[in-house]
Amino acid sequence: MRWSELYIPTLRDKQSEAELDSHQFLLRGGYIRKLAPGHYYALPLMQRVIAKLVRIVREEFDRTGAREIGMPLLCPSELWQRSGRAGPLGADQMRLRDRRGHDFVLCGSHEEVITSLVAGEVRSYRQLPLRLYQVGPKFRDELRTRFGLMRLREFLMADLHGFDADQEAGRESVRRIGEACRRVFERIGLEVMMAPAVPGPRGAVEADGVDFIAPLDSSAGEETVVVCEHGDFEANAEAAAFADPRDAQAPTPLLPLETVDTPSATTIEQITSFLNVEPTRVVKTLLYMADGAPIAALIRGDRDVSPAKLAAATGAGSLELAGAAQVAEAIGAPVGFAGPVGLKIPIIADPLVVALGNFVVGANQADRHSVNVNPGRDFTPTQIADITLAREGDRCPNCRGGLRARLGLLVGNVVSLGSSIPEALGALISTADSSDQPMILSTGGIGLSRTIQTVLESRHHHDRLIWPPALAPFAVEVMPLNCDNDRQTTLATDICAQLEDSGTDVLLDDRPLRPGVKFHDADLLGIPVRVVIGDKSLVEGKVELSVGYSASPIRVETDRVLGEAKKALAGLK
Amino acid sequence: MRWSELYIPTLRDKQSEAELDSHQFLLRGGYIRKLAPGHYYALPLMQRVIAKLVRIVREEFDRTGAREIGMPLLCPSELWQRSGRAGPLGADQMRLRDRRGHDFVLCGSHEEVITSLVAGEVRSYRQLPLRLYQVGPKFRDELRTRFGLMRLREFLMADLHGFDADQEAGRESVRRIGEACRRVFERIGLEVMMAPAVPGPRGAVEADGVDFIAPLDSSAGEETVVVCEHGDFEANAEAAAFADPRDAQAPTPLLPLETVDTPSATTIEQITSFLNVEPTRVVKTLLYMADGAPIAALIRGDRDVSPAKLAAATGAGSLELAGAAQVAEAIGAPVGFAGPVGLKIPIIADPLVVALGNFVVGANQADRHSVNVNPGRDFTPTQIADITLAREGDRCPNCRGGLRARLGLLVGNVVSLGSSIPEALGALISTADSSDQPMILSTGGIGLSRTIQTVLESRHHHDRLIWPPALAPFAVEVMPLNCDNDRQTTLATDICAQLEDSGTDVLLDDRPLRPGVKFHDADLLGIPVRVVIGDKSLVEGKVELSVGYSASPIRVETDRVLGEAKKALAGLK
Repeated sequence: MRWSELYIPTLRDKQSEAELDSHQFLLRGGYIRKLAPGHYYALPLMQRVIAKLVRIVREEFDRTGAREIGMPLLCPSELWQRSGRAGPLGADQMRLRDRRGHDFVLCGSHEEVITSLVAGEVRSYRQLPLRLYQVGPKFRDELRTRFGLMRLREFLMADLHGFDADQEAGRESVRRIGEACRRVFERIGLEVMMAPAVPGPRGAVEADGVDFIAPLDSSAGEETVVVCEHGDFEANAEAAAFADPRDAQAPTPLLPLETVDTPSATTIEQITSFLNVEPTRVVKTLLYMADGAPIAALIRGDRDVSPAKLAAATGAGSLELAGAAQVAEAIGAPVGFAGPVGLKIPIIADPLVVALGNFVVGANQADRHSVNVNPGRDFTPTQIADITLAREGDRCPNCRGGLRARLGLLVGNVVSLGSSIPEALGALISTADSSDQPMILSTGGIGLSRTIQTVLESRHHHDRLIWPPALAPFAVEVMPLNCDNDRQTTLATDICAQLEDSGTDVLLDDRPLRPGVKFHDADLLGIPVRVVIGDKSLVEGKVELSVGYSASPIRVETDRVLGEAKKALAGLK
Repeated sequence: MRWSELYIPTLRDKQSEAELDSHQFLLRGGYIRKLAPGHYYALPLMQRVIAKLVRIVREEFDRTGAREIGMPLLCPSELWQRSGRAGPLGADQMRLRDRRGHDFVLCGSHEEVITSLVAGEVRSYRQLPLRLYQVGPKFRDELRTRFGLMRLREFLMADLHGFDADQEAGRESVRRIGEACRRVFERIGLEVMMAPAVPGPRGAVEADGVDFIAPLDSSAGEETVVVCEHGDFEANAEAAAFADPRDAQAPTPLLPLETVDTPSATTIEQITSFLNVEPTRVVKTLLYMADGAPIAALIRGDRDVSPAKLAAATGAGSLELAGAAQVAEAIGAPVGFAGPVGLKIPIIADPLVVALGNFVVGANQADRHSVNVNPGRDFTPTQIADITLAREGDRCPNCRGGLRARLGLLVGNVVSLGSSIPEALGALISTADSSDQPMILSTGGIGLSRTIQTVLESRHHHDRLIWPPALAPFAVEVMPLNCDNDRQTTLATDICAQLEDSGTDVLLDDRPLRPGVKFHDADLLGIPVRVVIGDKSLVEGKVELSVGYSASPIRVETDRVLGEAKKALAGLK
């Protein structure tokens, strides 16, 4: 395709709106433009990138036995009221009321919408499994739009939904959908960490879901993943199991419980300094409101609570840290002096706390702490559960190897949502024994817009950005340096025709511009293989081939360009 | 492709929600399902139909030199406030306020959105013409959703926008966009009438726009087009010029103006009967509120006003018939007794009225009419303009041939929107003489969802529906009657492979079902060419080929199926 027939508005100057290299690249290369925060135009080159990614997604999604459908984007709010997710999803939903006064959601996800379809179609377990997907825009009332396509209010997504007759079949759907997502990322050359999905407001019910998190060193990395040095474990820090790196402490003789004055000592630092103990001998008692009622979470003084683990342990649909007034009402003392002894609300204690003895906690009185506290003797936890946030330096739960923390961005995921949405929306099947039961819903998806930019951002350690061939708008750019020179333009056209006939897409820079402008624009576009046709090499019957990030071009005989370019592309990632 | 690998939920029973054959067909063939009025799912077969149409649209739009982009669907309302179209388009717009309190429009058209993009990109007339298009969903707060995909609240559209440096170049854009639309309709076998675009609230400024209206006899025909029997004229009745079929009347001597009692005579029928005159000698005086102020429209008693012509003649942005109170305030008499004599508001008289003499009008007093009224002597029109709605029986303005009225549905259009939106949104260019001036915007589009159903509905005179090959989800269906019979299935697979290798898409009904079910489903799907493989014909070494609407299948030797099927497809529309 000829440059002159496309619309590629490259930008000479650095764009102040872009903090990330990938964002800068997409703006300056003429790929995207911003209309409003979180709302972007995709220019013709970006349309080509999207089309390449969508084709790969379709191939991999089709391979799971799923078929593509189109779903409405604006859907009656009633669906979410019936499913019970109007609350959990509500704040992020874009909603509107039409002129008749009917309420609609501009969908951020389609689980209810597809379940509503399937409820009207499927009656028997024999019609299952049924897997359907779509590729299209999603909307989210995002407050913190950031970094170009990384966090949008309107974005392109591919989502695949599986309906199954029982939990085992549901697990197979989760496995297949996950494998399809994994293959998409593999084919576009994007490294992803696969962390067990964190249960969340979406209603994920099983531990076999997966979050696909692309490692990103830059500030766009929103998630922390802990990874074992031996490669046998990766998990979102929020949900990661881990082994405590500290040696198990010998059980000490239980000392008598005492209550001591600790004026104004509310932080772990103040308490350890005042009482001269290690933070690991202090236990923090944090109060949360779980579905509106207070609970206490007990955690070792040197660690932090993972709200995701606490929510999963308690089964709470909504969970937030209690405010000062709520703390005062629950324990009769100010924030900073809560403790488990004599406490009348549910107590969830981490195993790291239960393993301790003779520790320090708040005394539920202002300016007082209890020392030599021992679980079992001085209080009884309602529940013992891992609620500690994993961190770098912890040990792998499988092999006790060191865990490293890596930042990344969630680019896809797959979860089982169980039977609650199908049940609420009447998606029932008659089973082999003729009883009616709800289907099992699994759902997975890839955020296409952010995936495209993440692919670029993960390459930003290079001095410039070059697309992986799988996503490049064109695989090869052919650049005759002087378009008034018939020999150059004829050869350029000829090379383009050869490449196109062999199934490689080519951009011909046919603009009558100075070589400097063409080289500059080529750098902005980032096409992986470049063929430069100039008089200097032509006297030797050669052209210059630049491949990926390699430092210097190589000279190639004109009749070997096709073969060399194809070989180069096959070797690039 | 194998039926068993697709999701094709055909329906055995007639669907009560469908009034039109085409709607019934789409539901029962497993093409679409309704989520809510005006919001539909596209099932896998429909996705294939859409993909075929979109491919044709892309080819024809690309041919105009336009390039495809993607635009946000949810856009700041401010754009329409700046362009001045928030009012005219407002009632139909889906609007929402986000949680920050910012107002957005869920776009029903993208003229403002694309102009906002181009305003930031183009600086010089040398960068023009620039033509960009998109294919995607559009939204409309439609009160009267009807007939499946015919009138939706959420629909697929392809819209092409041209930016030009001057009016002549703008006309060339309109011409090219129109030609692209015309070719799309031609390629999918949809007859369209091309009527000059009716100026409307969208702000069309020039007469060279075109409405593409597909003739539809059924109740889905919303527009009336008048067509000359000699084929040299078609126009939307609302905007059509025409010649009056009545012979021009000889000027009569002017008789003295009189005012007579006409108790309770307010309709043309009552007046003609009471005064014993022909309706053509009575003149109706209709009061409209034009941008909030009253005007009087004078029309011959046997005709109707075209609000579109009246709006165009007066330049009014908003126009509605005056209510009883507004009439009383303007003329001091009740509705039914208005007349031009002594009237103090602007009077727009149709030429058919001006040609009359000695006619009857209301006297601006209750129960009184004026007779022997003559324009010029008894009143002076503020403006003389064609404001009469054309109708069947009128004469062609070009050749005085008879005009026939045909009902149809608007499936596409192209208009010049002039420079007002570019000017309002700062889309300015420096011209050859270095002055800044706004670009000229042209815009055209095809309603893809309704076009698909209209193609079907325009074929409903047949006893069943069959897709034209250009849009069919598959060109050929191969149906082995007994899937347990190896000879049948082997031959079926072989024929499918041959057809697919030759570039024809085939559906193989590989389901182990009774022939009756397969035939019934095949009728529901409407694939244009069918190859039936059964033992009866196989003993002769033949299969049965059914082509389009032809009454009976023909027997074809197994080694001639490929050639015959291709030949049949080439001959089908």
